[in-house]
Amino acid sequence: MNRYEERELQEELGLVEEFLAEFLKDPGYGGEIGQIFTDIRRSRGKRLRPRLLLMASRYGEGFRDARNRLCRLAALVELVHMASLIHDDIVDDAPLRRGLPTTQSKYGKDRAVYAGDLILSRIVQSLFQNGFYHVGGYFGEAVEAMCIGELGQMECRYREDVSIERYMRNVYGKTAALCRLACTAGACESGCSPDVQAQLEELGVNFGYMFQIRDDLLDFLSDSQEAGKPTQIDFREGILTLPVLYAMENAKARPRILSLLRDAKRGAFDEASAKTLTDLVRYSGGLAHAAADMEMYAGRALTAIENLPDHGVSDVFRELLQAKCRI
Amino acid sequence: MNRYEERELQEELGLVEEFLAEFLKDPGYGGEIGQIFTDIRRSRGKRLRPRLLLMASRYGEGFRDARNRLCRLAALVELVHMASLIHDDIVDDAPLRRGLPTTQSKYGKDRAVYAGDLILSRIVQSLFQNGFYHVGGYFGEAVEAMCIGELGQMECRYREDVSIERYMRNVYGKTAALCRLACTAGACESGCSPDVQAQLEELGVNFGYMFQIRDDLLDFLSDSQEAGKPTQIDFREGILTLPVLYAMENAKARPRILSLLRDAKRGAFDEASAKTLTDLVRYSGGLAHAAADMEMYAGRALTAIENLPDHGVSDVFRELLQAKCRI
Repeated sequence: MNRYEERELQEELGLVEEFLAEFLKDPGYGGEIGQIFTDIRRSRGKRLRPRLLLMASRYGEGFRDARNRLCRLAALVELVHMASLIHDDIVDDAPLRRGLPTTQSKYGKDRAVYAGDLILSRIVQSLFQNGFYHVGGYFGEAVEAMCIGELGQMECRYREDVSIERYMRNVYGKTAALCRLACTAGACESGCSPDVQAQLEELGVNFGYMFQIRDDLLDFLSDSQEAGKPTQIDFREGILTLPVLYAMENAKARPRILSLLRDAKRGAFDEASAKTLTDLVRYSGGLAHAAADMEMYAGRALTAIENLPDHGVSDVFRELLQAKCRI
Repeated sequence: MNRYEERELQEELGLVEEFLAEFLKDPGYGGEIGQIFTDIRRSRGKRLRPRLLLMASRYGEGFRDARNRLCRLAALVELVHMASLIHDDIVDDAPLRRGLPTTQSKYGKDRAVYAGDLILSRIVQSLFQNGFYHVGGYFGEAVEAMCIGELGQMECRYREDVSIERYMRNVYGKTAALCRLACTAGACESGCSPDVQAQLEELGVNFGYMFQIRDDLLDFLSDSQEAGKPTQIDFREGILTLPVLYAMENAKARPRILSLLRDAKRGAFDEASAKTLTDLVRYSGGLAHAAADMEMYAGRALTAIENLPDHGVSDVFRELLQAKCRI
C-alpha cells in the first residue's frame, strides 16, 4: 500500500512548488513586497526539508489520503526555512545567498525584518486555516529552537572558550530543529504510531547535525564561486565552526587560530588569512575530526532507519543520507 | 449574569500579569535572553489591549466560564504588541521606549530580531497548546496586517505625495489591526453571536484609529520628557503623520514643511526646526483637523457601542473611549 515510488515523490514535490508559488505570489499590497516574494521564490533551494517530510510520511498508513495536506505542510516547512534565512541574513549582514543578493542587501534590513515576519504570520494563518492543529505546535517549537540557536551563536561570537558541546547545541537550533520538524510533521500527518514518529524525529535531528557539519566542511573545501557565497564568512563573523574547534584542540594550532580570530574581530582578516586558516584547520586534523563526527551523526540517522519498519522507503532514505554526507 | 464589574476586571488584569510573568520568565537558555525578557516585562505599558479584550468578552454569555482562557488570550495579545515593538524599534533605530532603553539599543539589533521572533514563536505554541484554534487564525491575520502597515509606512518615508488615505491604511496595520484582534478574540472566546462580534470588531478598529491619531497629536503637544521618548521622531524619520498631512493642505505651510522634510532627510533637523514644524502644524490647522478626525473615529466607535446589547459594560467602554480621546 505505502511502498515508496520515486515518481510519486517527484509529483508531490511539484505540488509543493505550486503551494509555494501560491503562497509567494504578489499579495498586492503595493510597494516592494511583491518583488521580495518573487526574489525569494526564484532563489531556489534544494527543497531538502520538503523531501524529508514527504519521505517520512511513507511510514504512515494514511499518507495517500493526506497527500495534499502533506504537500502543503512540506511547503510550510520550506517557508519557515526561507523566513529564517531572511532574518539570518540581516544578522550576518550577508550580501549573497545561493549566488543571489539577499533580501537585506537588496531591500534593506528594515524591509527584511518585516518580510520575514510577514511570511511567518502567513504560515501561522495557513496552519490554523487548514486545521493543522496537531503539528502547529511543533512549528512553534521549531521556530523557538531556531531563535535560541541563533542567539546562542551570537553569544559565542569571537569568544575563545567555546566548547564543541556548546557549538552543537547551537547547531541543533540552526539546522537540526527544522529537519526534525520536517520528519515529525510528515510522521504525524500520515498517522504514524508514536514509536515510529520518535524514530523519525531521531532521524531528522541526526540528519540535521550531519548536514550542518557538511556545510561547515564545505566552507573549507570549496571556493567562493562554487559555494555561491564568500567563504569563511563564519570565521570572519567570529563564529568558530566544528572544523575550527577541533583544530583548536591542537596545542600548536590553537594560538595561531586565536590570533587570526583577533584579526577577524578588528576587520583585518584577508585572503592570506583565509589561506592560513584553511591550512591550519586541515593540517591539525580539524577537517578529519569534523568529518568523523559527520559520519557519526550519519550513523545515528542510519540506525534510526534500521529501527523503522521497511516500507520500501528506507533505501531511498539511506541514499539521500549518503548523498548529503558526501563532500 | 454578565453584568460588568470593575472589581472583576481588575482581578482579571492581575491574572493577565501572572500569565505575562510566566511567559516572560527567564527561559534558562543562558545568554542575555533572560535579561531581555525581564526588561520587556518591566517596561510596563498601559495594558490597553488586554483591557479591550476583557471588556469585549462581557458581551458573550460564556465569559465567566472562559475567564482563565480569556486572560491568557489577553496576555497573548499584549505579547504580540511587545514583539512588534521590539521589531519596530529596530527599524526606527529608537533609543528609548516608555523612558527605558529599547531592546535594540541595549542588546543590539541582531538580538532584537531573534528576541521578537522568539516571542512570536512562543505565542504560536501557546495558541496551539491551549486549543485556541478559532482565534489563532485571527492572530496570524493581525500580525500580517501589522507587517503590511509597517512596510507601507516605509514606502512612504520622505515622500512628498503621501495621501491621508494612504496614511490611514498604514495606521490600520500599525495600530487598528491589533485593537481589532483584541475585541475579536474577546468576542469569539466568550461566545458572542456573529453580529455582536462584527460590532466589536468595528469598535476595535475605530478605537485603534482614534488611538493612533491621539498619539500623533501628543507628539506635537508634549515635550520629550513627558512622552518618555524624543518628540517628532516620526518626522525626523520621514514619516508624515496626520497633523502634518493636514497642515500640508495649507498652500502656505506646504512648501515650508517640505523644506523641513528635506532638512530631516539630510539629518539637518534640529530643535529650531522642531519648533518651526510645531508652529506650522498648529497655525495651519493641522492639529485641529487631526483632532476632528480623532473625534470622528471616536464617534464611530461610540456608534458601534450603541449597536451592542447593553450588558452594563457599555458605559465603561464609553469612559475608556473618552479617556483615550482626551489630549
